[in-house]
Amino acid sequence: MGRSAVVIELIEDSSKALFINLAGSIIREIERGRLKPGDRLPGTRALAQSLGVHRNTIDAAYQELILQGWLVAEASRGTFVARDLPDLGVRTWGPPRKSQTSPLASRAALTPLRFSDGAPDARLMPGVELARAFRRAVSAAGLKRLTGYGDPRGAPPLRSALARYLEAERGLTIDADDLLVTRGSQMALFLVAGAALQPGEAIAVEDPGYPLAWKAFRAAGARVVSAPVDAQGLDIDRFEQLLDQEPGVRAVYVTPHHQYPTTVTLGAGRRLRLLEIARRRGLILVEDDYDHEYRFEGRPVLPLAARAQADDRVVHIGSVSKLLAPALRIGYATGHTDLLARMTDLREAIDRQGDIPLEHALAKLIDEGDLGRHARKARKIYEHRRDLLAAEITAQLGDAVAFDSPAGGLALWLKVAPSIDAAAWAEAAERAGLLLSHGGQLRLDQSRPANAFRLGFASLDDAELRRAVKLLRAARPA
Amino acid sequence: MGRSAVVIELIEDSSKALFINLAGSIIREIERGRLKPGDRLPGTRALAQSLGVHRNTIDAAYQELILQGWLVAEASRGTFVARDLPDLGVRTWGPPRKSQTSPLASRAALTPLRFSDGAPDARLMPGVELARAFRRAVSAAGLKRLTGYGDPRGAPPLRSALARYLEAERGLTIDADDLLVTRGSQMALFLVAGAALQPGEAIAVEDPGYPLAWKAFRAAGARVVSAPVDAQGLDIDRFEQLLDQEPGVRAVYVTPHHQYPTTVTLGAGRRLRLLEIARRRGLILVEDDYDHEYRFEGRPVLPLAARAQADDRVVHIGSVSKLLAPALRIGYATGHTDLLARMTDLREAIDRQGDIPLEHALAKLIDEGDLGRHARKARKIYEHRRDLLAAEITAQLGDAVAFDSPAGGLALWLKVAPSIDAAAWAEAAERAGLLLSHGGQLRLDQSRPANAFRLGFASLDDAELRRAVKLLRAARPA
Repeated sequence: MGRSAVVIELIEDSSKALFINLAGSIIREIERGRLKPGDRLPGTRALAQSLGVHRNTIDAAYQELILQGWLVAEASRGTFVARDLPDLGVRTWGPPRKSQTSPLASRAALTPLRFSDGAPDARLMPGVELARAFRRAVSAAGLKRLTGYGDPRGAPPLRSALARYLEAERGLTIDADDLLVTRGSQMALFLVAGAALQPGEAIAVEDPGYPLAWKAFRAAGARVVSAPVDAQGLDIDRFEQLLDQEPGVRAVYVTPHHQYPTTVTLGAGRRLRLLEIARRRGLILVEDDYDHEYRFEGRPVLPLAARAQADDRVVHIGSVSKLLAPALRIGYATGHTDLLARMTDLREAIDRQGDIPLEHALAKLIDEGDLGRHARKARKIYEHRRDLLAAEITAQLGDAVAFDSPAGGLALWLKVAPSIDAAAWAEAAERAGLLLSHGGQLRLDQSRPANAFRLGFASLDDAELRRAVKLLRAARPA
Repeated sequence: MGRSAVVIELIEDSSKALFINLAGSIIREIERGRLKPGDRLPGTRALAQSLGVHRNTIDAAYQELILQGWLVAEASRGTFVARDLPDLGVRTWGPPRKSQTSPLASRAALTPLRFSDGAPDARLMPGVELARAFRRAVSAAGLKRLTGYGDPRGAPPLRSALARYLEAERGLTIDADDLLVTRGSQMALFLVAGAALQPGEAIAVEDPGYPLAWKAFRAAGARVVSAPVDAQGLDIDRFEQLLDQEPGVRAVYVTPHHQYPTTVTLGAGRRLRLLEIARRRGLILVEDDYDHEYRFEGRPVLPLAARAQADDRVVHIGSVSKLLAPALRIGYATGHTDLLARMTDLREAIDRQGDIPLEHALAKLIDEGDLGRHARKARKIYEHRRDLLAAEITAQLGDAVAFDSPAGGLALWLKVAPSIDAAAWAEAAERAGLLLSHGGQLRLDQSRPANAFRLGFASLDDAELRRAVKLLRAARPA
């Protein structure tokens, strides 16, 4: 019959309904292992008394958790922790690597640690809110939406919600019809190159930069050419030289808010020059604002798109995956009307439309403030992790490295002393059970090395960050 | 408080659990309007007695319907029909058309009827099973799957389930690793052209044929050239002539099971010749088996892919959308290993991966037999509708038209007498409130007219089919 003597504490978060708080407390007890599969929960009356809340609150929390699969109700016997819960252990990102055996590996923990390239911590995913929104999306009313085709630009409620969100957060004066919802920012990158460039035309990209964007542009038939990045972001003088040398460049791809991978914010002067150059030369300016919400110092900088004029050929791209979970493929594009219409045509030819249940679920999450609340909560946690990583690096790695603490974004760009080869260091770290990406993997023009690491700190908790820096120190080449 | 005196009948379908049958009965009562929003349901004890079933069965059915949003439970007051149910009226497919006013329109019913191009009846969608599968996919265990990226080929359980299904239903000897899950067959068409053809290379397509396939191929950068169809499907002699004249043709797109739009099945002799030609000339053969499950006369014909040799460059494409709901974007491709790998690379560049909750929900539906059961049930209904449409046409339209009853698929190809212009007829019908597509819209080479209609019969019930044929008769040009 399972045990019944479990103490459940109610941890209150005044921004949420009481029953949601209680449900969260019970999930934490299950995750900690204090409530085990098959355990019986206290009766609703008894728990209501001991917590001093109304019995309906307990009922609602139990119902919520039954719907989510954490608990099961057995008629006349009570409520139990489900027996078929998944492994609740820590997961790592990315495809499984071939295991390597080495003396170092055997000393490392069984689960290799990974500095992601800037992924959020999926353990913070607002599962309760997400599951509720999903369930409503596949209710009877939700399923009715599946009986016909949808709008290739995305479900209207999601476009409205995103438009309001982007207007409030990024100063973009747009409405629902100015948005194209895509399957992650990845699809938006593919669409802009496919819709705007003829085969063989080129797009200039920041170097070092984001290899998955290069992959999308190339898959769409575009050439990708290197535009150097310096300590202040895209080097505008050298970009102009490139345009003179390479007349086939029709577009430029930039990450001005937190340059990928160096995390630097492009200053006002360079922004204005970039807009002016694009306008004068008729270039398409693709702005990827992938990490906008995670700003730790001062307010987020308004995007280039917020300063663009109506006929500037600017396309602003963002993603919700970074806010919720990588596997929820929702991104968006807004900007120049004709370009957006051509992107929509291409999108329709590729897969007709997006995922109707997911789009409606997300619209609810935004409208009801859950997304914003989650972002604010996560931002505090990530800021703490950034500071902890910076302190650990300073203490452990000393003069082998140098860095500026990033003003925003979920990664730190760690420059490695010239006397040490970052690629060899990364290889040694991998043998020790720590995966990370080094600058050479983020270089388009391999003749200019980038002797550095991009360390995503958001997906590791305090203990993991400390262990990761220790492993990095141990793997340091002599 | 709402009424309580409603008689619920239990209509049994022995292939399903009793509580699912009961839930279905209650939904029907709500859809018919005999149970109205706010009505109170009978108590579980009373209903159990009156139906002669165990009270747990009633409980389970009510719980199921509460989860689906049809019913709401109010503590200590009872169970009620939800007050926020959506409009349960008949929906039509496709984007809304501009309303046209004419004397005929005012006589037509308010809702225009549409002969789809072969869509299933979304009113038959197995909503109960689908909602259950979705809810499990977004349970606590399901959400854990969202914490990392997935396989760009699709969720492994879905690929396994589809492989078993295709082996049993289509004689394809494949396993999970031979499949790429796509967002509808539309994406598979885009990927095969994008991965297999260089910009400017051509793909030959059946003419008349499927315009959305042409759209996908063109969007991927391919040229589309016309290969004539005669009364037995693709004209193989003229196809060979085309290949001699057009050396840029590197692929051919065919719908051999039920040619789109003429519904004819390609015979064994032509199939063997087509495979031989493709082999000899190194052509890629793209087989779209979009309607395989709906075969009314004899057994389905095995696809070309089932006869292909390992090094034949055949790609077999199918869709689950036709079985469930158009807006559930799940299709798949299998075939030549290298082509499939290149398609997977392109897919990853476009949107990384599919929809994890949807893919897992569908795997459950296949594994538990719900999809097969639904297909068998729907097939019987559609066969009846095909026969009713054929009888109505014979009775009402007489010698203005000619047709062969389709052996399979969800549409009938209605040839119009040469003295009548099908395009003008379709236009008059639209003014009268009946939407349908005519052969001219399905022609690539407009110099060869196709004076015919493609009448999708599956999405209209008996009364709608009768009314549609009457409208067609009334709109017939003099």
